[in-house]
Amino acid sequence: MRGSEPRFRPAWSPTPERSPTPDRSPAPAWCPGTRPCCRTPVGSSGSLRELRTLLTRLADDSTVRVIVFSSADPEFFPAHVDMRIGENMDVLQELAASAPADVNVFQAVGELIRHQPQVTIVKLAGKARGGGAEFVAAADMAFAATETAGIGQIEALMGIVPGGGGTQYLRNRVGRNRALEVVLTADLFDAGTAASYGWINRALPADELDAYVDRVARNIAALPDGVIEAAKRSLPADDFQEGLLRENDAWASQFDVPAAQKLISRGLRNGAQTPAGERDLEGLMRGVARRLPDVHPHTEAPGPVARRASGRSGAALGRRCGTPFRRRARVPRVPTG
Amino acid sequence: MRGSEPRFRPAWSPTPERSPTPDRSPAPAWCPGTRPCCRTPVGSSGSLRELRTLLTRLADDSTVRVIVFSSADPEFFPAHVDMRIGENMDVLQELAASAPADVNVFQAVGELIRHQPQVTIVKLAGKARGGGAEFVAAADMAFAATETAGIGQIEALMGIVPGGGGTQYLRNRVGRNRALEVVLTADLFDAGTAASYGWINRALPADELDAYVDRVARNIAALPDGVIEAAKRSLPADDFQEGLLRENDAWASQFDVPAAQKLISRGLRNGAQTPAGERDLEGLMRGVARRLPDVHPHTEAPGPVARRASGRSGAALGRRCGTPFRRRARVPRVPTG
Amino acid sequence: MRGSEPRFRPAWSPTPERSPTPDRSPAPAWCPGTRPCCRTPVGSSGSLRELRTLLTRLADDSTVRVIVFSSADPEFFPAHVDMRIGENMDVLQELAASAPADVNVFQAVGELIRHQPQVTIVKLAGKARGGGAEFVAAADMAFAATETAGIGQIEALMGIVPGGGGTQYLRNRVGRNRALEVVLTADLFDAGTAASYGWINRALPADELDAYVDRVARNIAALPDGVIEAAKRSLPADDFQEGLLRENDAWASQFDVPAAQKLISRGLRNGAQTPAGERDLEGLMRGVARRLPDVHPHTEAPGPVARRASGRSGAALGRRCGTPFRRRARVPRVPTG
Repeated sequence: MRGSEPRFRPAWSPTPERSPTPDRSPAPAWCPGTRPCCRTPVGSSGSLRELRTLLTRLADDSTVRVIVFSSADPEFFPAHVDMRIGENMDVLQELAASAPADVNVFQAVGELIRHQPQVTIVKLAGKARGGGAEFVAAADMAFAATETAGIGQIEALMGIVPGGGGTQYLRNRVGRNRALEVVLTADLFDAGTAASYGWINRALPADELDAYVDRVARNIAALPDGVIEAAKRSLPADDFQEGLLRENDAWASQFDVPAAQKLISRGLRNGAQTPAGERDLEGLMRGVARRLPDVHPHTEAPGPVARRASGRSGAALGRRCGTPFRRRARVPRVPTG
Repeated sequence: MRGSEPRFRPAWSPTPERSPTPDRSPAPAWCPGTRPCCRTPVGSSGSLRELRTLLTRLADDSTVRVIVFSSADPEFFPAHVDMRIGENMDVLQELAASAPADVNVFQAVGELIRHQPQVTIVKLAGKARGGGAEFVAAADMAFAATETAGIGQIEALMGIVPGGGGTQYLRNRVGRNRALEVVLTADLFDAGTAASYGWINRALPADELDAYVDRVARNIAALPDGVIEAAKRSLPADDFQEGLLRENDAWASQFDVPAAQKLISRGLRNGAQTPAGERDLEGLMRGVARRLPDVHPHTEAPGPVARRASGRSGAALGRRCGTPFRRRARVPRVPTG
Repeated sequence: MRGSEPRFRPAWSPTPERSPTPDRSPAPAWCPGTRPCCRTPVGSSGSLRELRTLLTRLADDSTVRVIVFSSADPEFFPAHVDMRIGENMDVLQELAASAPADVNVFQAVGELIRHQPQVTIVKLAGKARGGGAEFVAAADMAFAATETAGIGQIEALMGIVPGGGGTQYLRNRVGRNRALEVVLTADLFDAGTAASYGWINRALPADELDAYVDRVARNIAALPDGVIEAAKRSLPADDFQEGLLRENDAWASQFDVPAAQKLISRGLRNGAQTPAGERDLEGLMRGVARRLPDVHPHTEAPGPVARRASGRSGAALGRRCGTPFRRRARVPRVPTG
């Protein structure tokens, strides 16, 4: 669609909804040419820049009222932040330079979404992990498919913690006890559980998701003038400034640890960021960790019980796959391997 | 019951619960002569005054421990604020003069309920929209019938936003993402969904609702002296002052727009505030909006998709049906028709 | 296990999880010799002291990452605070002297758990009331058995209110409306309802609970170094100081009232703190209250309706069973009967 290089095509595909447009079929209306995020990772520095450009441009377009984010790939929403993001240091530095004070470049994405004047809606048919899950939680609303959607903060399995706002958005939506469960189990949650936790608005049967989100988006877009703005003034975005600072500090303290770099590069080498590897990325990363005993000095080789509990697939993940972050004030340092 | 003019009879029917009273059957105990709220609109200025008088009187009656609000009409709880409220400017002005500082006359109702020393319980068998839904959320607890209850903030379809505390109560109970969903979809939510969101305490089978609420109310009323007061001191009402100001500003900015006045008066003319029109008030108002393209300059005529999605019934709503509000400090100005 | 006197054996049985330990079977791993809490009450001053000693010691042990609290008794978690706690005034005074400022000795337990550096997980197979329920809500996570678990704040039936942090933890987890429902109905909530309220993380089939919690605990214990600490820094424990003061004041104002002492001592005399009496402790205490009309001057003898609604078993509860508290600054005064 936009940009000639597939690698930088955003897997986030915001479709501005201006008004009811009965003459186009709903499906293409929401999915203008996105690509599977495993092939076109959503967190590549290119797509981050494009996303920011797009949202900034839309913010000034008063004819756009609703933005629906979806993925053309039925399996993956923005899967997580691209592990090759570090190869574009110049773009990262540019992004860091223009990010708001006191947030890192990844938190800046969430903050941009959270303060968008339009109503932002995520339609989640597939899996969203790490930065993808943070994107979901930053939007005003999220609806997901019961049978096929999955959402998880996988960062812990890479030796880090969410660093793009995820911990604060989660706490706000599901409370501290469940936020700790999400962050520390690093499990992939199905849509029904995510909805029961309040992480997303609703879980819907997969074959009803398109029509449902379509109806919601059109109805909101058709509201009398000024209603959306008035609703957002009544219900302004929370101020997470203090929490985002804490989160960034916690993230940064882990990101520089050799274990994280090792886990990420081994993960990449073992199949992460391939469709096959992404399907059970949790199992893949747990497998990598088990074969890297030095990242966890207290770990013994797992016996049958533990193996049964967590040993699912094999393979491994690579460089900064979960939520690569860089505090704005610091020079982004990225893994080379 | 009280007052000779049916129009001013409160649809809110607070029944003070002093102690277990086995000698009266549960049903009349909770429903002392209320009338269907479509015939005796609950938000008429008269009922507001009566409600305030009643709650103020009860606040000083230490023998009353629990107040259960219910409706004798199986279809409607306080349906929403009466659209004819503007015809009683003197009463509105009197109410505004005695409302607490910094809240409008409608927010004052919610604040009164929220600070009632007794335990306030809503038993919701039918539909509660707009000001009726705000009443539900202002009470200490709410229990609703799975098969028959409905709750919604319909204001957006009238070109306004909730202005009687609803946005702040919602955010507190269901979080911002679901509050935006409730306010902007303006849909009617069933009891199960409302309970899963935390909007109400529980959804119960319709034929168990009376007995369940009866048991809860009697058990609480039978607690040892001082327990209710101690519990309320441990769990004081939230302070929503800042949010209520924001809400009122947002509401007021929309209420003066001609579109809102048009939508409300057309709605009234098309069957709102009649039992038939109230059953699908959302469909009625969406129909009105579609036939008033000038209230939404960007709206095109809906095609088959949009029509299928939102076109349900026909008819229209009238003057200030959703949540007519007036900032205390300003002279209430009301639509003339 | 530790200590020679069964009465002081803690029903809370924290099992430090160092790393996956495949060579021991899961069940004994989490349940090292605890005893039914009705026989070895968990809130006895001895066990409180032991619990504090244990948690303080573990806090300095960096090899321990996860603590799972469970009970060997399938019927009861820490059932509630021991009613004989008052017989050990010296221990209580010692505990009060070493508790943090501005919290009472019972709130100090919750605060200790909430600030434990390890991840604290409750596995709830049986019933937890009063102080036991406060323990559950103080832990980082809680998982409970759908068919067998129960959780309730029973204090109201003893004429008091929760005083060990319960009101504030509840409000934070389930919101004020449901916190009031929990505190004022004093009902025992099943695991499914508790999970839907957000009181606990999840309800699971009873026969899957052990394996599930085992997997969660092992997976978290196997995380790369520093992740748990980073997650807890991103998601620090809430500051409830103001609310705890309010709670303690409310609790203390009720605890000194003769009605509470009467209810507690009568309850004890009628079978509380026996396995049989504990199974329907709510019914037992409601029965005691009905036969003590002077604790509630407005109560009439219940008729058939009320009797059907709340009259379940008979018997009564004893001295300070729910949540006996003592403000740190005050000299603990305890009932003698």
